[in-house]
Amino acid sequence: MDGLFWIGFAGAALALLFTVLQRKKVMAASEGSDRMRKIAASIREGANAYLKHQYSTVFKVFAVVFVLLLVIAFASDGRMLSKVTPFAFVTGGVFSMLAGFIGMKIATNSNARTAQAASESLNRGLRVAFASGSVMGFTVVGLGMLDITMWFFILRYGFGMTDPAEIGNIMVMNGMGASFMALFARVGGGIYTKAADVGADLVGKVEAGIPEDDPRNPATIADNVGDNVGDVAGMGADLYESYVGSILATFALGAIAGYGFNGMLLPLLLAVCGVVCSIFGSFLVKTKENATQESLLRSLRTGTYTAAILEAVAAAPLTYFVVGNWGVYAAILSGLIGGCAIGYFTEYYTSDTYKPTQKLADSSETGSATIIIGGISLGLKSTMAPILIVAVAVIVSFFAAGGAGSFNMGLYGIGIAGVGMLSTLGITLATDAYGPVADNAGGIAEMAGLPEEVRQRTDALDSLGNTTAATGKGFAIGSASLTSLALMVSYVDIVQKGTVETLDLTLTNPLMLVGLFIGALLTFVFSALTMSAVQKAAQSIVVEVRRQFREIAGIMEYKNDPDYARCVALCTKGALHEMVAPALLAIIVPILTGLILGPVGVVGLLGGVSVTGFAMAVFMSNAGGAWDNAKKYIESGHHGGKGSEQHKAAVVGDTVGDPFKDTTGPSLNILIKLCSTVSIVFSGLIVLFNLANLL
Amino acid sequence: MDGLFWIGFAGAALALLFTVLQRKKVMAASEGSDRMRKIAASIREGANAYLKHQYSTVFKVFAVVFVLLLVIAFASDGRMLSKVTPFAFVTGGVFSMLAGFIGMKIATNSNARTAQAASESLNRGLRVAFASGSVMGFTVVGLGMLDITMWFFILRYGFGMTDPAEIGNIMVMNGMGASFMALFARVGGGIYTKAADVGADLVGKVEAGIPEDDPRNPATIADNVGDNVGDVAGMGADLYESYVGSILATFALGAIAGYGFNGMLLPLLLAVCGVVCSIFGSFLVKTKENATQESLLRSLRTGTYTAAILEAVAAAPLTYFVVGNWGVYAAILSGLIGGCAIGYFTEYYTSDTYKPTQKLADSSETGSATIIIGGISLGLKSTMAPILIVAVAVIVSFFAAGGAGSFNMGLYGIGIAGVGMLSTLGITLATDAYGPVADNAGGIAEMAGLPEEVRQRTDALDSLGNTTAATGKGFAIGSASLTSLALMVSYVDIVQKGTVETLDLTLTNPLMLVGLFIGALLTFVFSALTMSAVQKAAQSIVVEVRRQFREIAGIMEYKNDPDYARCVALCTKGALHEMVAPALLAIIVPILTGLILGPVGVVGLLGGVSVTGFAMAVFMSNAGGAWDNAKKYIESGHHGGKGSEQHKAAVVGDTVGDPFKDTTGPSLNILIKLCSTVSIVFSGLIVLFNLANLL
Repeated sequence: MDGLFWIGFAGAALALLFTVLQRKKVMAASEGSDRMRKIAASIREGANAYLKHQYSTVFKVFAVVFVLLLVIAFASDGRMLSKVTPFAFVTGGVFSMLAGFIGMKIATNSNARTAQAASESLNRGLRVAFASGSVMGFTVVGLGMLDITMWFFILRYGFGMTDPAEIGNIMVMNGMGASFMALFARVGGGIYTKAADVGADLVGKVEAGIPEDDPRNPATIADNVGDNVGDVAGMGADLYESYVGSILATFALGAIAGYGFNGMLLPLLLAVCGVVCSIFGSFLVKTKENATQESLLRSLRTGTYTAAILEAVAAAPLTYFVVGNWGVYAAILSGLIGGCAIGYFTEYYTSDTYKPTQKLADSSETGSATIIIGGISLGLKSTMAPILIVAVAVIVSFFAAGGAGSFNMGLYGIGIAGVGMLSTLGITLATDAYGPVADNAGGIAEMAGLPEEVRQRTDALDSLGNTTAATGKGFAIGSASLTSLALMVSYVDIVQKGTVETLDLTLTNPLMLVGLFIGALLTFVFSALTMSAVQKAAQSIVVEVRRQFREIAGIMEYKNDPDYARCVALCTKGALHEMVAPALLAIIVPILTGLILGPVGVVGLLGGVSVTGFAMAVFMSNAGGAWDNAKKYIESGHHGGKGSEQHKAAVVGDTVGDPFKDTTGPSLNILIKLCSTVSIVFSGLIVLFNLANLL
Repeated sequence: MDGLFWIGFAGAALALLFTVLQRKKVMAASEGSDRMRKIAASIREGANAYLKHQYSTVFKVFAVVFVLLLVIAFASDGRMLSKVTPFAFVTGGVFSMLAGFIGMKIATNSNARTAQAASESLNRGLRVAFASGSVMGFTVVGLGMLDITMWFFILRYGFGMTDPAEIGNIMVMNGMGASFMALFARVGGGIYTKAADVGADLVGKVEAGIPEDDPRNPATIADNVGDNVGDVAGMGADLYESYVGSILATFALGAIAGYGFNGMLLPLLLAVCGVVCSIFGSFLVKTKENATQESLLRSLRTGTYTAAILEAVAAAPLTYFVVGNWGVYAAILSGLIGGCAIGYFTEYYTSDTYKPTQKLADSSETGSATIIIGGISLGLKSTMAPILIVAVAVIVSFFAAGGAGSFNMGLYGIGIAGVGMLSTLGITLATDAYGPVADNAGGIAEMAGLPEEVRQRTDALDSLGNTTAATGKGFAIGSASLTSLALMVSYVDIVQKGTVETLDLTLTNPLMLVGLFIGALLTFVFSALTMSAVQKAAQSIVVEVRRQFREIAGIMEYKNDPDYARCVALCTKGALHEMVAPALLAIIVPILTGLILGPVGVVGLLGGVSVTGFAMAVFMSNAGGAWDNAKKYIESGHHGGKGSEQHKAAVVGDTVGDPFKDTTGPSLNILIKLCSTVSIVFSGLIVLFNLANLL
């Protein structure tokens, strides 16, 4: 059935066509007053400038890795590494970059339009922001499908490969470029946005006592730029990587499980089907003019849940038709349901409508130290539900899809569960990506001095965005855990084919144990580097903002504009400078581990980084989200409200949570998969050269 | 050579005799003025009262587990569980309790004496405090050796067992009682001490602006009680557990490796030899009257390093004589050197004489949020060195002891490396346990209004104690990682003997992967529970202290005494109430995992909890230590000194760090080993009854 793969192009075309229509809708809206246009232009300019710098830095690193791969592939005449891989590495990177870039383009064109639309009505604001989110969501999905299908056709017909296992093993390496690019985008963007945010808050809100997004704050433009380069461009690249990664990992397992090309066709069909369901769902997202926050959330949920249910229904005949195994269908369902369940628990732990965040707000009564301790323990505790859900999904998908007999068919079940979890990404990402647009719209409303009610409407949209963003992160990290297990299995398969000895992969093998420890080390040190990067960059912003308040006369009296550009430049410099080390770590550690401990050590590393990375990501994202919302809860009038000592304590919590939830937390899921694909790509080299061979 | 085991009794007698001499030395010193005696009596009373309550709570839990074990052992007529195990469980618990209790007894008798001695000279203060620490150190070692040797003789001659493997497998289960007791002591004591400390600091230091240990602070007696029940009794039980655990795990591996009784004799001989070396080393600990802090540290180091070097020298002929394998000697050395190296890096990351902590102090310039972010990233980064050191120790000991051929002999190397690391525990623990005594002495000096120079001397002793405590924790956690690996191996061996199927322990087995995830879950949730326990208990102290300041007139003017007893009672209640859940978690999760996922899942769990627990323990201990010392660094005059905004930020950091370094961090190493021994004890049950059998 390999002829049916053309449907990937059709799905990609459909998704991309939909983005064009949504973009038209956005651009047709008014961008508001001159002042609003001017602010939006500054934000756009700052974001473009940052991305330009980021891409040029990334370009250099990519060039080095590309040459390295080229040398390995051609020097070994394709035996260590397929000659295709270096090129696939580049296309993966470019597409991931494009996904982020297009998302950011539309977001920076939608912010003022959303503010203007919100000044007319809440529903109009929602429509513009959601259309912008849809452009991002469907761009990610469309480009991903295009990349995958294109390379399948090149290998299958261009190179005339007929062995599904060969195609699968080459394609799984294609994920490395996307992951590498995504890591740069997430880490760099994450450092940028949080340095600006923390810097702006610490001096503006805490020291000077001026509101968020106040035009007198020199870091306010940088803060709004940050939303776009971090929460939009970074997230786009991240989810592109997740989406493509889950499908490619399943491609490789399909061949191992003996499903041949059908094992690859199924994830692609699920993805195409997901596009159709997502488009349908997105038409359901609208609200009444006098909508409350609950009805807003309900309208978004109607869209995403409808899409998920339709997908679940459609997957049944598809699965039966393609692989003829109802167990695989059960695996897909376990992924879909698991994703929704993780989303629910994420919301439970981070939304101020539930007890955990309300209790966290209570602990502000005894000061900032107790709210920090409380948030950390909340985050740590919140890992329980996602880990149990993933555990159940793994067990169910493995045993359902594998039945009594086949181990490899069971593993395919784990891979396809990850695909199921992300299959309706088009719409889940749309609901996620609209958040930063609403956030920016609020900033513009504040800076342009729009009436109070406009800000209230954008705040309602933004606050909802926090919830959907948390849900989105839940999906990303949940699918990452499944995908990383699938990638680990395919690593073992590839290595085992390349060596005559049977690898001793028992857990009690000391090489394996040491690998596990190194995996934990990688997670912890990567987290340390990204956190301290934010801290360093933020400190430079704090110093700069204090300097401007001191040296530029008349800022506080609105007589003089602060020097916004200086803060934008500082953030850019900080982010670019600090993003390289953690990203390189993710490449160097797996290779070094392989060279010293051999493939067994690498498997241990992948296990260690998957487990610790997953738990740490959930901990950090949820602790950060809960601090943010505890602060909002206090601002809404509890525990003394804005300006009280309790509020000050909550701001400290929120500030600590910023790098947790927007830099380190969401980067970890990429780290996990990048380690896996790097290990796969360099496996040929490692099998030949490693110290463990000598022991 | 099993006749030679009597030497264990000789070692135990020597160690315990030494404690009697040291105790005499302490008790001969004067306890100072009436006021000092009265304060010391209050502290002693509070500590005794808490321990009494703690032991009665623990007694109930022990009784339940004892009956459960009894039922399993006798109902299965010894097939599922040796009939000896329930009784060994109790003796392990009692001895661990005794170790903590005796340590606390002497500590609460030494605090005022140390203050009085320090008022004469620094050297006298050091001698009294160090003698008290020695009582603790050698009690732990003596009781541990006594417990082990006694049970060996009961099994070997009482029951007439002749198979080393049988004896080894029964003895390894004896660790469970000690670990269980230690977990209660560490968690309960840790909650107590930090609730009192955090509560006293938040209201006393931060809100009311009175110094630490000020007699006007209602929580100050509770704070000093806490040092004794947490840092002394808790630590004693903890290190008793570590010491015994490392030897027993090696006992089991000795039989597997084919060394017979000699494989058990070696760790015991190393321990006995360690006692002699430690006693010798402890005679070298003294300082000149006009000593500086550096010369104090040098004198402590002279003692510990001399002991370690002597041990290293003596171990060579011992090892060759007993097992005839130089590779095993290399393993012992790797443990000894690894322990010292971990100690060094712990100091590097937490002492204010090095850059990391100084930089952390810098980040106080931009407020409490950045010092929190900075401390978290410092702690995360600091995991790198210990993990790499343990990795090297594992590889070296495994390959050196195993040579080219024997896997099991290599595993024995890992176990014996852990014994090597702890062999001179007598003196390392003495240098560690003297810290809280000096801390208490400072508190008494402050409360009794002794001259400023006395407080300066006790502060010098105390500050050094922070460094040695960090080093002690490094040893405990480093040895825990090696011991837990050894225990995991012996678990596999025991289970494999009890079932006909070969266990599929490959890492890619989904049951194993799910087990790994559950291991991470356990570490994270356990950390959450212990952290939030401190937070809850501390909040109740904060409320109470605020109430006393408000309602009891004249406290601030020294006209009225605060109600110290009320805070002591609240801490006791909080600690007892909150310690049970985390301790039970460590028993229930491994059993439940076994019942659902079977032995393979349990092995995954043990791997997961070892790796994540180790990394998390290092992270928490070092972050907490660094915050503490960053605060002290600022107090010594940097960044504006005491009372500045920077200092306030540092106090927030220190407060967050309190449960990190004194509750959660040091409990994790016990958690790891308790999981292993629980799994071993219940393995007979799990092999027969588990859901995974049905799949």
